[in-house]
Amino acid sequence: MPYEHTSTRRIEFSETDMAGLVHFSNFFKYMETAERDFFEAAGVDLIRTKPGELVGWPRARAECKFSAPLRFGDTIDIHLAVKAVKDRAIDFQFRIFRRNADGSRTQAGKGHMTTIFAQLNETGALQSVELPADLRECITEAPAEVLAKPSR
Amino acid sequence: MPYEHTSTRRIEFSETDMAGLVHFSNFFKYMETAERDFFEAAGVDLIRTKPGELVGWPRARAECKFSAPLRFGDTIDIHLAVKAVKDRAIDFQFRIFRRNADGSRTQAGKGHMTTIFAQLNETGALQSVELPADLRECITEAPAEVLAKPSR
Amino acid sequence: MPYEHTSTRRIEFSETDMAGLVHFSNFFKYMETAERDFFEAAGVDLIRTKPGELVGWPRARAECKFSAPLRFGDTIDIHLAVKAVKDRAIDFQFRIFRRNADGSRTQAGKGHMTTIFAQLNETGALQSVELPADLRECITEAPAEVLAKPSR
Amino acid sequence: MPYEHTSTRRIEFSETDMAGLVHFSNFFKYMETAERDFFEAAGVDLIRTKPGELVGWPRARAECKFSAPLRFGDTIDIHLAVKAVKDRAIDFQFRIFRRNADGSRTQAGKGHMTTIFAQLNETGALQSVELPADLRECITEAPAEVLAKPSR
Repeated sequence: MPYEHTSTRRIEFSETDMAGLVHFSNFFKYMETAERDFFEAAGVDLIRTKPGELVGWPRARAECKFSAPLRFGDTIDIHLAVKAVKDRAIDFQFRIFRRNADGSRTQAGKGHMTTIFAQLNETGALQSVELPADLRECITEAPAEVLAKPSR
Repeated sequence: MPYEHTSTRRIEFSETDMAGLVHFSNFFKYMETAERDFFEAAGVDLIRTKPGELVGWPRARAECKFSAPLRFGDTIDIHLAVKAVKDRAIDFQFRIFRRNADGSRTQAGKGHMTTIFAQLNETGALQSVELPADLRECITEAPAEVLAKPSR
Repeated sequence: MPYEHTSTRRIEFSETDMAGLVHFSNFFKYMETAERDFFEAAGVDLIRTKPGELVGWPRARAECKFSAPLRFGDTIDIHLAVKAVKDRAIDFQFRIFRRNADGSRTQAGKGHMTTIFAQLNETGALQSVELPADLRECITEAPAEVLAKPSR
Repeated sequence: MPYEHTSTRRIEFSETDMAGLVHFSNFFKYMETAERDFFEAAGVDLIRTKPGELVGWPRARAECKFSAPLRFGDTIDIHLAVKAVKDRAIDFQFRIFRRNADGSRTQAGKGHMTTIFAQLNETGALQSVELPADLRECITEAPAEVLAKPSR
């Protein structure tokens, strides 16, 4: 069962700010991209809908430590690992790496995100619900060595 | 009946890019802000919903000419004028002004947006519909002199 | 000496996502807005430049816990408090409140941001530097009661 | 000499809005991505810098007509064609296509962008300059049939 995923993308001009670097808020969007790709690879439909029902993935918490700047044109790898599968939520760990010209990689950020499984109730309010059994069977927690050091 | 509106806002750091200027895509967001404020001032509910029905305002076209750069911390005025009220759409004209330290204003951009009145049908496709009569009564087309030169 | 600030703004349509709520990455942009306003009120120039030198405010860390959703049109108050003034960085705490129709407020998020004082060296790399004395004189740490409960 | 380019990307969750569709301002970011890829494939360095000099590519004008909505997870092709090479600017045409499940493509948008070759002068103002000869030799105008109908 899958517990990690690596997504790759380029930094866009529109993601930079006047300091010449990627605006820090975009690190969270990069995490979300890896999460989408992970769920997709695991065969999980992110937006399940039954008639009159929307089930989504709001965040309970998001955090990032920034260790190196990213710049326009950089290619980055976003490594996701499942840290914990809880009753109503999943904890993800992310590491964002910049690919250097010499083939090495520099860690630009390390983040965490707690994603809740939730549905909109009749009044339009979000309500957390238990992860369904078929979803639990699609994913598992990453071993400690993967959390400590991405396999690629 | 209202035919123009001026919204005012500050430029955020996250709206700049590595050239040190506001990224051009944000000019379109500024137009949308003025549109929201205009509809609100005119008493129009932007997102009408009946049970099982979502009515929204997709764009058919958006355009902007950029004549002066905007920078972090600038205060801007976004002037909206109703150019044409059509059967299923409204044409807006926008002028974006930067307030200068000496009290003068510099035009930073001039744009147009065609906004359609539409609803989602059962298959999830967007379908344009006629502007309802009560909405037509809320707004009117701007006189030529307002389109040529904002009153403030 | 100032240790807190409250900024107020409206939620824009472009800040929502397909779940109908504000995309979580925007909470970090709201924090940055309050930081800009705080520095401005304290008389601190955010982007000091001498010839050939750019001094900026990169983040070392950013975190947010999300407790209630924000929606298009909501008015929010973003309360900043200075948690710690360090040698080369400032720790900020943020609370984001949604104003309700009945005059009450709901806390939508609580965040932290560590902002470094840094300059670009000749090789284009960011380097943290000590907070200058005049800046230290402009700001101070918030009392515990302000961190626990915003004054407004 | 190159006169067209096609970039491909996925739609991100953060690019949608509460109507469930891609926010229209993102179409302009997609165009910019194709522009970056085109310049890169043509061997043009987008951000030329000499000591004390920044040369960039501000927009004089941007326009898009929207013909079909894009949704989260869609794969899109962004086709760029060089419409006109001018003294100080390049006119680009863009077509954005959504890839459908049956292998067909739906045109979601058609846009234009006029990109100026400019440098920052000593006072920090942008000033358009002539396209350098080596850059002119890297790109050429697209034949009418490519503008009318992308080759892929």
